[in-house]
Amino acid sequence: MPTYKAPVEDVQFLLNDVFHIERYGNLPGFADASSDVLAAILEEAGKFAEEVLAPLNRVGDLEGCKRHDDGSVTTPTGFKQAYKQYADGGWMGVSVPAEYGGQGLPGTFTVMINELLGGANIAFSMYPGLTQGAIAALLHHGSDAIKKTYLPAMTAGKWTGTMNLTEPHCGTDLGLSRSKAVKQADGSYKITGTKIFISSGEHDLAENIIHLVLARTEGAPAGIKGLTLFVVPKFLVNADGSLGGRNGVMCGSIEHKMGIHGNSTAVLNYDSASGWIIGEENRGINAMFTMMNEARLGVAVQGLAISEVAYQNAVNYAKDRLQGRSISGVKAPDKPADPIIVHPDVRRMLMTIKALNEASRALVLWTALKADVAHRSDDEKARQAADDHMGLLTPVLKGVLTDNGLTNTVMAQQIFGGHGYIAEHGMEQFVRDARIMMIYEGANGIQALDLVGRKLGRDGGRAITAFFKEVSDYVKEHSADEAMKPYVAPLGEALAQLQQATMWFMQNALKKPDNAGAGSTDYMHLFGLVALGYMWAQMARTAQEKLKNGANGSEERMKAKLVTGRYFMERVLPESAAHLKRIQTGADTMMALPAEAF
Amino acid sequence: MPTYKAPVEDVQFLLNDVFHIERYGNLPGFADASSDVLAAILEEAGKFAEEVLAPLNRVGDLEGCKRHDDGSVTTPTGFKQAYKQYADGGWMGVSVPAEYGGQGLPGTFTVMINELLGGANIAFSMYPGLTQGAIAALLHHGSDAIKKTYLPAMTAGKWTGTMNLTEPHCGTDLGLSRSKAVKQADGSYKITGTKIFISSGEHDLAENIIHLVLARTEGAPAGIKGLTLFVVPKFLVNADGSLGGRNGVMCGSIEHKMGIHGNSTAVLNYDSASGWIIGEENRGINAMFTMMNEARLGVAVQGLAISEVAYQNAVNYAKDRLQGRSISGVKAPDKPADPIIVHPDVRRMLMTIKALNEASRALVLWTALKADVAHRSDDEKARQAADDHMGLLTPVLKGVLTDNGLTNTVMAQQIFGGHGYIAEHGMEQFVRDARIMMIYEGANGIQALDLVGRKLGRDGGRAITAFFKEVSDYVKEHSADEAMKPYVAPLGEALAQLQQATMWFMQNALKKPDNAGAGSTDYMHLFGLVALGYMWAQMARTAQEKLKNGANGSEERMKAKLVTGRYFMERVLPESAAHLKRIQTGADTMMALPAEAF
Repeated sequence: MPTYKAPVEDVQFLLNDVFHIERYGNLPGFADASSDVLAAILEEAGKFAEEVLAPLNRVGDLEGCKRHDDGSVTTPTGFKQAYKQYADGGWMGVSVPAEYGGQGLPGTFTVMINELLGGANIAFSMYPGLTQGAIAALLHHGSDAIKKTYLPAMTAGKWTGTMNLTEPHCGTDLGLSRSKAVKQADGSYKITGTKIFISSGEHDLAENIIHLVLARTEGAPAGIKGLTLFVVPKFLVNADGSLGGRNGVMCGSIEHKMGIHGNSTAVLNYDSASGWIIGEENRGINAMFTMMNEARLGVAVQGLAISEVAYQNAVNYAKDRLQGRSISGVKAPDKPADPIIVHPDVRRMLMTIKALNEASRALVLWTALKADVAHRSDDEKARQAADDHMGLLTPVLKGVLTDNGLTNTVMAQQIFGGHGYIAEHGMEQFVRDARIMMIYEGANGIQALDLVGRKLGRDGGRAITAFFKEVSDYVKEHSADEAMKPYVAPLGEALAQLQQATMWFMQNALKKPDNAGAGSTDYMHLFGLVALGYMWAQMARTAQEKLKNGANGSEERMKAKLVTGRYFMERVLPESAAHLKRIQTGADTMMALPAEAF
Repeated sequence: MPTYKAPVEDVQFLLNDVFHIERYGNLPGFADASSDVLAAILEEAGKFAEEVLAPLNRVGDLEGCKRHDDGSVTTPTGFKQAYKQYADGGWMGVSVPAEYGGQGLPGTFTVMINELLGGANIAFSMYPGLTQGAIAALLHHGSDAIKKTYLPAMTAGKWTGTMNLTEPHCGTDLGLSRSKAVKQADGSYKITGTKIFISSGEHDLAENIIHLVLARTEGAPAGIKGLTLFVVPKFLVNADGSLGGRNGVMCGSIEHKMGIHGNSTAVLNYDSASGWIIGEENRGINAMFTMMNEARLGVAVQGLAISEVAYQNAVNYAKDRLQGRSISGVKAPDKPADPIIVHPDVRRMLMTIKALNEASRALVLWTALKADVAHRSDDEKARQAADDHMGLLTPVLKGVLTDNGLTNTVMAQQIFGGHGYIAEHGMEQFVRDARIMMIYEGANGIQALDLVGRKLGRDGGRAITAFFKEVSDYVKEHSADEAMKPYVAPLGEALAQLQQATMWFMQNALKKPDNAGAGSTDYMHLFGLVALGYMWAQMARTAQEKLKNGANGSEERMKAKLVTGRYFMERVLPESAAHLKRIQTGADTMMALPAEAF
């Protein structure tokens, strides 16, 4: 059975040494986020993930969720107890403001904790994950009354949350939504319609489930500009906060799916269910987008998390499994064969995953810090810059880290040979669980379109211009430093390619919009390579400084950082040129065939 | 539920128009392989695949195989009847010599038929597939007595076959095998040991199962040079060909695995089972290699087959699913949204799979024709050249077409969005079924090592030299032709990169063998791109000729070929430069970390 070890030291290296979290001390909540508090939280969260959640990962896959005739759903053995521990531990509210019962710590802490939970058990982590998204939407868009009604119990983990967007005939194109909302005399609405693919949609973990639902009010315009967001609790909530009667929302079925069996993916039938408006009428998409940015960053973290746990297990196997002899000379003469970690092609896979994971973790935490600035800073310019960063990087993180999540789990599985295909080793579950991440919260092709079609040009290209300037300044600043050359020289090249690709879109996509769509996925990955490469340059710089100034017991880890960063530059980054070349061929050939020719 | 349509016209285009199968008329069996016979066989095989096997694909996945307490295994509902139809139809023996009851047709026909069976139902197709491999090994290495005993019933499909190599502690490194063979007074052997991952290892489809088993005779040397191949029937065979008593081989369990649930993957326990030598003592690996080349080509065909069926279903979905509007203007104004095939990023995925599949089919059939030359020609030089080609291309085909099999099924699944993750649509089964192909018959990393470590240098590089010359001559021959430039110019560039990579190995791998291992997978894929590109150049040339000389109703298909070939050159081939760059970085960084640093 797979094991999991929380990457505690790597998170500390990033937050303390690379990103200097202490510099954010002026933001609310960060004063309480000393490196001691960080260490204590990481240790506790790591223990919970390793000891409670990881052992339930296979159980969840084997048992799955069970729906009963009354529409109730039972989660796998052990999930309920584990969820109680999660709620009792106060994990749901780590970053929720104190006035709703949270600890008010940086959102970055929740992001970092979620990597650990996801690494141990993706299906489980989705129950709190969706709840945190719902909390964020209510915090930003809910009225005071609604916040008071729902947030304390959700923050305490007594109630969980969901997002309801997809319908049978529409996923990406939400404008086609048919769910209706009819206004009642008391200001509430009656919601009717069918929502599908609702993660954590029905279960036995919590007393109540708070659904956030997109629906169309009577007379609202067609398309996405006629959608309103509603809060629809499974059980109605009395004025005193106690639970009232059952609301008109029932789980019609749960899906039989490729993976994440431990999470219930529900079809929810709304039949005149009582709901209350969140935010403004017909502006549901905007409210949903707040939630989606958090959720998309959350899915990116899942991609990293599953890649990390798959990597760890592949490393263990590669050190244990004896097969063949090293071509550079026998390494374990006392054994019948060498451990397979001596073979270059096995190294290739391990180094590739390692190089991607460590840079991905950096990119996640860097962006999470920006999110904290965007939410908490009192400096408007800083808020705006951080918000620009979030908008630009969120689709890149979601698309790239989850595409990598699949390829990395597949590589990790490959290291097991035939044993990787057998269920008991657990590697094939990682692949199946990873697969959904490329799809939900907006399929990765949609992330790429969001990046190219919306984020690049927004505010006259302010976000991308700032990103280019930052990376370009960094490259220039360190280009004369011999030790940094192996990192910043390739990064500079890839940045230039990304700039050329951006220019190409500016020159060719206006006159022919298909040229943007045709290059969008390649652009997203090219962007990802540059962003990850930038993380490696910074990590290498920090490692060099630490090695110079006394690494305090982390010498070997810092040396490994330098090697792994070089590997990224030599072996992962070169993909950038192919992306640019593909982008520059445009849409002509791609779109030339009539549909019948396929 | 997914559907399947046999790509009959494409096979005919390749065999008749591109490769001119009539030119092979002097080889035994080819005289009977007229284009009419080809058409008739394709039609029949296609019908069987589409109507009988495809509907059983999901059944096989859902039910899987069941092992009973007595060690017997039941295959999924419908498999037995379908197998009977397969056997009665004479499909097993299409290419087996007439003296054993076969039809003696080209091996190429069997390869082409196997694509259709695999496209319809991979798990099912493995029962006959393994049998054909066993037939090949017996044909090449069995004594006359053994051939007479086993081949007629196997050719008739009354008995099936298996390959037994892997043991719990050894897969890739067969030299560690522990299964023993003790010689008996009558010249037979008693085989004892445990073999795992035996595909089609136990089932209820046939009266008998003929296991080919690697084991070590008493006093044999350690390592792979002490292994001998044995035939071990499940039921002993009497002198008159009737079945005798049960032999000492039992199915201990079947694996619970990620996919191919319809095929039984057995643990076989040999307990003093009677076996007879195939080929020479201690030369079992050589006999096994004959079988493995066929089997590896067979797995490459599986990669193509599953990619094809996944593509077809993704195309159907992309034409049906309405979501969003084309950014180049509304395409279906009468509908609430456009079909998603109008979106460039959906096209990108469909075009990529299409471009890979069509070239892969060409590469498979071209290589299958070479195999026929190698087996059947009476011209020694032609046989040698064809055998060189087989040895060189087999690992490329196996590694590249199965890696693509996974990425292509993943892309096809992605087109379905959330619906692709749900079991009932069948797309996730394709991904799970495709995954094993990268592992079995030698994991793809082993294919890459076989290519770089063994095949490149063999006979002074004769095979690779011939391949370079052939492609290079083709590029030169057509480089002045304006219409061919978009195909041969990029092909020439990629070929030059492959030659540079080869040169780099020659200069750097001898002094440091890890440099070969470190670049092997990239080299295999670079090789694959050149080989597939060469196929596209030839297909484009043929399409241009047909369009000039009267395409006889195939104008649209020929125009589509030209577009799809261009797409390959513009969008798929550019990967070659990244492969070269990675190869040239060598092993230093990859191998720098101590094992503890992972």
